[in-house]
Amino acid sequence: MIKQVLISIVFGAAVLTVGILIGHFGITKSGSSSPSWVKDVAKDVDEDFVEKFMSTVDNIQIQENLRELTKVPHMATTAGDEETVNLMLKRWQDPSTGLDQAWREEYLVHLSFPDPKNPNKVTVVSPSDTVLHTAREKEKSYTPDQDDPEVVQPYAAYSPPGHPQGKLVYANQGKPGDYQKLNETVDLRGTIAITRYGGAGRAAKAINAAPYGVIGVLVYTDPLDINDGLMSDVNETYPHSWYMPPSGVERGSFNTHYGDMRTPYLAAKDETYRIPVEDITGIPPIPIQPIGFEDAYILICALGGEAAPSVWQGAFNCTYNFGGPGFTNTSAFNNSDVRLDIFNNNVLKNSSNVMGIIRGSVEPDRYVIYGNHRDSWVHGAIDPSSGTSVMLEITRVLGQMVKQGLWRPRRSIIFGSWGAEEFGLIGSAEYTEQYFAKLSERTIAYINVDIAVFANASLRASGMPSVQNVLFKAAKQVKAAGLDTSVYDNWIQYFNRTSPAHGIIPRVGYLTGAGSDYAAFVHYLGITSMDISYIYDRSKTKARIYPAYHTAYDTFDYASKYIDPGFVSHQAVARTAGNVLIRLADSLVLPLNCSDYAESLEDYLKTAVRLYEDKLQAKGISMEPLKRAVANFRSAATHLDQVILTSDLVNETPMTIRRINDQLMLLDRAFLDPLAFPDKYAYRHVIWASSSAGKQTFPGLADAYANAELTGQPRDWDKVHYHLSVLSQAIEGAANTLVDVI
Amino acid sequence: MIKQVLISIVFGAAVLTVGILIGHFGITKSGSSSPSWVKDVAKDVDEDFVEKFMSTVDNIQIQENLRELTKVPHMATTAGDEETVNLMLKRWQDPSTGLDQAWREEYLVHLSFPDPKNPNKVTVVSPSDTVLHTAREKEKSYTPDQDDPEVVQPYAAYSPPGHPQGKLVYANQGKPGDYQKLNETVDLRGTIAITRYGGAGRAAKAINAAPYGVIGVLVYTDPLDINDGLMSDVNETYPHSWYMPPSGVERGSFNTHYGDMRTPYLAAKDETYRIPVEDITGIPPIPIQPIGFEDAYILICALGGEAAPSVWQGAFNCTYNFGGPGFTNTSAFNNSDVRLDIFNNNVLKNSSNVMGIIRGSVEPDRYVIYGNHRDSWVHGAIDPSSGTSVMLEITRVLGQMVKQGLWRPRRSIIFGSWGAEEFGLIGSAEYTEQYFAKLSERTIAYINVDIAVFANASLRASGMPSVQNVLFKAAKQVKAAGLDTSVYDNWIQYFNRTSPAHGIIPRVGYLTGAGSDYAAFVHYLGITSMDISYIYDRSKTKARIYPAYHTAYDTFDYASKYIDPGFVSHQAVARTAGNVLIRLADSLVLPLNCSDYAESLEDYLKTAVRLYEDKLQAKGISMEPLKRAVANFRSAATHLDQVILTSDLVNETPMTIRRINDQLMLLDRAFLDPLAFPDKYAYRHVIWASSSAGKQTFPGLADAYANAELTGQPRDWDKVHYHLSVLSQAIEGAANTLVDVI
Repeated sequence: MIKQVLISIVFGAAVLTVGILIGHFGITKSGSSSPSWVKDVAKDVDEDFVEKFMSTVDNIQIQENLRELTKVPHMATTAGDEETVNLMLKRWQDPSTGLDQAWREEYLVHLSFPDPKNPNKVTVVSPSDTVLHTAREKEKSYTPDQDDPEVVQPYAAYSPPGHPQGKLVYANQGKPGDYQKLNETVDLRGTIAITRYGGAGRAAKAINAAPYGVIGVLVYTDPLDINDGLMSDVNETYPHSWYMPPSGVERGSFNTHYGDMRTPYLAAKDETYRIPVEDITGIPPIPIQPIGFEDAYILICALGGEAAPSVWQGAFNCTYNFGGPGFTNTSAFNNSDVRLDIFNNNVLKNSSNVMGIIRGSVEPDRYVIYGNHRDSWVHGAIDPSSGTSVMLEITRVLGQMVKQGLWRPRRSIIFGSWGAEEFGLIGSAEYTEQYFAKLSERTIAYINVDIAVFANASLRASGMPSVQNVLFKAAKQVKAAGLDTSVYDNWIQYFNRTSPAHGIIPRVGYLTGAGSDYAAFVHYLGITSMDISYIYDRSKTKARIYPAYHTAYDTFDYASKYIDPGFVSHQAVARTAGNVLIRLADSLVLPLNCSDYAESLEDYLKTAVRLYEDKLQAKGISMEPLKRAVANFRSAATHLDQVILTSDLVNETPMTIRRINDQLMLLDRAFLDPLAFPDKYAYRHVIWASSSAGKQTFPGLADAYANAELTGQPRDWDKVHYHLSVLSQAIEGAANTLVDVI
Repeated sequence: MIKQVLISIVFGAAVLTVGILIGHFGITKSGSSSPSWVKDVAKDVDEDFVEKFMSTVDNIQIQENLRELTKVPHMATTAGDEETVNLMLKRWQDPSTGLDQAWREEYLVHLSFPDPKNPNKVTVVSPSDTVLHTAREKEKSYTPDQDDPEVVQPYAAYSPPGHPQGKLVYANQGKPGDYQKLNETVDLRGTIAITRYGGAGRAAKAINAAPYGVIGVLVYTDPLDINDGLMSDVNETYPHSWYMPPSGVERGSFNTHYGDMRTPYLAAKDETYRIPVEDITGIPPIPIQPIGFEDAYILICALGGEAAPSVWQGAFNCTYNFGGPGFTNTSAFNNSDVRLDIFNNNVLKNSSNVMGIIRGSVEPDRYVIYGNHRDSWVHGAIDPSSGTSVMLEITRVLGQMVKQGLWRPRRSIIFGSWGAEEFGLIGSAEYTEQYFAKLSERTIAYINVDIAVFANASLRASGMPSVQNVLFKAAKQVKAAGLDTSVYDNWIQYFNRTSPAHGIIPRVGYLTGAGSDYAAFVHYLGITSMDISYIYDRSKTKARIYPAYHTAYDTFDYASKYIDPGFVSHQAVARTAGNVLIRLADSLVLPLNCSDYAESLEDYLKTAVRLYEDKLQAKGISMEPLKRAVANFRSAATHLDQVILTSDLVNETPMTIRRINDQLMLLDRAFLDPLAFPDKYAYRHVIWASSSAGKQTFPGLADAYANAELTGQPRDWDKVHYHLSVLSQAIEGAANTLVDVI
């Protein structure tokens, strides 16, 4: 009996134990078990998904995208532009490969076009009013693309109309110093100046000229600057190579500021207040017109006067003279004038952005924005449609995954196909003005891929220093086009630097100007941004940019033959940019590194101290606050890095993750000061603003210092001190956002 | 055997079941059970804790705080100020009732003081240079407080030094229209103008005078404006009542902008760039000095010339004449001048803020800021120490709970004891400049309690419309001092309005000016703010403010006898403000209501349409964009309200709560435009900026319209259109932040 009882007890205990174990481990609790979102909020980027994305990105799809995008010229607001709007909408609204939502947004913007009925003319006119020479009005045809009636005549957008006539002079690149130099020898009053592209902004070539009495300006691309000196279309230039044919003309927007000119800081809606056209600043005060080097050759080689300095000489087989002013008396143009007949019109036209979104699952109120402009000057196969064809492939692959329920990003992704970029980054700028508060509060980062492939040698990337690491991570995972190495390993061969923290690494550039649609994001909103492309081997060509840039030769034929046969560099860019995009959207902790930011600030500081400290000390201005600010930034960044490294983030409360991510997301916002650059339109980021001083250091400080040195005025030294305080306070303020939050 | 087997099976099954049940329900799972933070992140405000807080707030503690704070005068940067700094630090660092941390922050700021060795003088001087009358240099003593050697002589801070002498004129309140009117009758060149307080800012009384050639200004408080006409200290004024004695003088800062004047937009650190003193704007260009009505009576009643208009007449038993200029020939002062000898000095001095924090448990990176300035003009029992004694009681009660481990707020609480407010809100402004990015990104709300108790009749509150609801909730839970009713029910008797949404409710004022330390938070940072106090019964007195304001009579004796005997109104303010503070810090969803904001915008719109639409239409300027913006804001607010109401928030992912709270927190930030008011220093909030047009509508629109009507210039009508666009875009932008986040 005792034995039986004992057995029963042991048996019972055993069964009870089994029961307890089953009950505890075998059955999922409903009451106190974790809510379903606990796992979701802790989810990190899925490397398998990243792999899958990259392997799905297809070069042939990109090629076919480009073929479709470049069927016709699609200059902003033209019928061709409207076709691309509809193409974007169709793709992004596709039920099986589209995004969650896509729509268009219109702005009524100030544009400038030539008059198709009265083409602009450049002529050489004899004293008896005989036209001795007429510059070519249209680029020469080599393929049917150039014959498209929608190819716009080469012109300088925003040049005023007018009919100036005068003696020709050669003004090199049209920089302030160029006109100053020229004016020492030649009386410039009443002259027409011919300048070459490069060295100064397009509008600047006319703005710098006017004070000397110059009444009209021509601009051309010297074969030295774009064609490695080659000039003949018999066997040297396109269609025989990627070089610009003699009649090729770079079109462009001749302006200084970005965004719609008539609605500064305001989205250009129908009823928005518009400043009078005559109040617009930063555009040419005198007529200006671009011409091909075929015509420039004829004009320049006939110039009289003294020989220009050697650095002014280009690739033509003649001496570039200043001009007498005018032509040499041994030329057929002796005593003749050059005459410009410019018929450009200003118009208000509706330009569209096309927007598309993928809604985030966990943090829909955090945005990663990916953008590219849609408008071109002519067919724009490279600028911008190489970028658009890449963007369409990224959205196709991601859209498909979303539609199939295989993936949804943690954060929301916004795609922007910007309008009217060529006229001054208008679509992206208006977008940021309209949604200023929302975008400022919620945007993680902006990725810009405008010209995706300049050439097929190497990746090139620019951005805030904090994006360096995620760019590296992505570039290491992508195979370089046609090579047995990664994009990263290839990149580091072409662009590199030695980092105190990381050793030899690829050099990521800075976004200090307004060269593409990142401008408003970087400078006006202070959003962490990057610009990604593939580019050429500088050791093999001195071309300023790919030679068909802004000409009628930037076509599918040109791109597929000379820029990226097989579209494998396009594919590498799509994989790299898409990889970065997914990491920004899906990573639990944002892949932005503030210590890399500190390294750049230290680098800028070192230069500033080296260049300025002695003289500033002599003026009683201390650089200690700036040094302290940078040191505080460094120690705050190190601290935040440590917090991220040492935390068990997957098991942390989601509030901790969000807090860290907010610190990383908002870091660049802390560098904004809307009053820091009173003379620069919409530049608010005190670290990355444009600068004319040409020093690799804090832009406002460099410019203020250069000005004070020039004038020697105590008030200008005060301005240096003032900007030092602005800068130190901004860096201290940014450091304050990185330390423990309370 | 079968039976035994059966019994064993049944027994075994039963034991197994018990085991399963124990295993499932009896033992907490460690693996898949909820992480400990799941409950924390969903916790809402604890009403029992709110009750406990309110019942612990003690009137006698407040009284003793006030007694200690007012032992000596504590004008900014004096030894008395340093004593209060140390008191705050001692209290906030107390191991059993202090905060988590407390520290001081110093700024080197531009202040203005009289010279103790050369007191300012106001005299009547005969043509033979005999001094016929000297205005009292110190206020008369009624208690030992007035004898304290640290009582500063009455003066106008930031008045320039100087010795103007001229004929006296009476200029009413020194408004632009007052001088214009006076100038029609009297040649003002070389005169001294006497003005009364009210109607125009202090500095404006001198700024408005200078263009007419006035060389010096006096200012006094007319008994009509402060004492309900009473004048005698034999039985009418303090120490017999709360009224100002005849020798009482309101001191003050005579400036227009707020913050340290020499470091606009920059925190005034030692090495910060300072503008030259001569570049400071908004301060008196000519000497100005305040005097008591005892002296003003003697001067004004001796004035010659025509009788001033009836609205210019005050309480003196004589006719207020314009002045001949100068005195009537029937007076002893016939032909005499008035002479000012002003010896004020500008100095740079270190002023301290004292800061204290309670770290938040769940969202430490969200701040509720509670502030009050610490500096007074003399003993400052009411201004500001009534507020400081309330703040110290709130921190004592909350600090105790924290130290005992009974409570820790969800969000962080920051307490600020600001320095040098009396000189132009300097401490709070410098703080916001130094920590601009951090505070902009993370601050939920700012609560200002400066003068806690003006008088003991009713609560008075001002703030953004979104705080109305939480103010009501708190006020309903607090018992009105000495009454059998709630603060809310008492409040609604004194201030009320009919709301379309809520019916008759207490009227919450707007923070459109820069009257206290909320200014930088509201206007510069766009942080949702409120200002809370107890105030008098307007039906019982016409006093412009409590009569001892900025005089040597603002003492503990005065406060405890005439303002709040028993300190029960102080207690009611502490309970109300503390209740609001706890709700902002602890509520799961922030108690800020955006639909109430919509109601205010609609109200402003209605007024704007009524006042401006016809004329604007005639000028071709449409108000439709503004109407659309307000309608969009309303519908977005309604939508967000619905989302909050219909969500099961306690069971929602914490990311959803945070998203909604971010929308509510950042709402006011969306109304900022740093370029909206180019002529107003540090005013960026397009809805609440100051306005001189005196209309209950959008300030920039009202001012631009008034100016265009005045000048009739097309360019000024353009400015109206421009501001309409700025305003519409800001409201649209704010609406965009309230709709679904993607």
